[in-house]
Amino acid sequence: MPASIPHDTLVANLSRHISLSEDELALFCARLRPHKVKRKEFLLRQGEIARDSAFVVSGCMKAYATDTNGFEHILRFATPGWWVSDLSSFITKRQSQLAVEAVRDTQLLLLSRSDQLELFDKIPKLERYFRILMENALVTTQMRLMDNMTLTARERYQRFCRMYPELVNEIPLKLIASFIGVTPEFLSRIRAAK
Amino acid sequence: MPASIPHDTLVANLSRHISLSEDELALFCARLRPHKVKRKEFLLRQGEIARDSAFVVSGCMKAYATDTNGFEHILRFATPGWWVSDLSSFITKRQSQLAVEAVRDTQLLLLSRSDQLELFDKIPKLERYFRILMENALVTTQMRLMDNMTLTARERYQRFCRMYPELVNEIPLKLIASFIGVTPEFLSRIRAAK
Repeated sequence: MPASIPHDTLVANLSRHISLSEDELALFCARLRPHKVKRKEFLLRQGEIARDSAFVVSGCMKAYATDTNGFEHILRFATPGWWVSDLSSFITKRQSQLAVEAVRDTQLLLLSRSDQLELFDKIPKLERYFRILMENALVTTQMRLMDNMTLTARERYQRFCRMYPELVNEIPLKLIASFIGVTPEFLSRIRAAK
Repeated sequence: MPASIPHDTLVANLSRHISLSEDELALFCARLRPHKVKRKEFLLRQGEIARDSAFVVSGCMKAYATDTNGFEHILRFATPGWWVSDLSSFITKRQSQLAVEAVRDTQLLLLSRSDQLELFDKIPKLERYFRILMENALVTTQMRLMDNMTLTARERYQRFCRMYPELVNEIPLKLIASFIGVTPEFLSRIRAAK
């Protein structure tokens, strides 16, 4: 199958970690379903089953939970080159704790769990790719957890700026506040005091 | 090589996820180095390079960071059947942010990163095993991060009790407090009010 532009983004990402033959690439790409979501549109709502993991080609998604007081807590943003889902629901097919929603108009490539597992059998190098992604995501998440326990709000903001430089001036302040775990007013004071 | 008791614990753990031939098992076990640590002994100190990932055969380890005020923040406990390391340092060979220390006398099996990567080439099923472990660890860590952002201290304590039932009455209260992110005094009040 001819490679299209969205797939090219993924192929560039793959080639950072593994090297696939043309046949293997075609087999993989044939299982990816292009999907577009408009800003504020959901890929997954809290309580649904996450059928797919989504590769971000362009745009930006957020994965978040809403607490019993209605406050939104952002687990992560997914910018181009990242996969996003509610991993727990994707693996176990239990109800998702997270919602996944577009922060901007976003172009995605969707991969179902059953297709992913089948591909692991057919193309072991793909299992390597996802093993490496899982390792990196675990490192990032552990670091974020330790940051939340040990850093001040100002330090967490500085870490956010290093982690997502492309988002700092591009997304609403309240989303950054929700990621850092402070009110937008408090974040404004941190930024003013910089 | 004849299977010894510590290796049997790991083999049982492996067989929950993959099935290895006798030759493959022998190849894997030959790379594992048995190691014992006494209570309060370190496997890894903050700032060192994590050479190994450690499988817990018996006992209990904790992975934690110490903040600038000297407070200890526990990322996780590792009980029998779990692997523990500073994953970031293990992968990148940069200085560890975490220390890994024995909570009780502990029996470990150590695996170096270079041996692990070599084994992935020789036994692709092992890459599957670690891919699954990474997925599960990521799910647990994401859940913990969301819990820290959305739950009260009481709810975090209840979650700890479900997550580590074997530790609740077995380790010092101050370690549980350090995991939950409250003072031991505050945790005592939570437990008294149960």
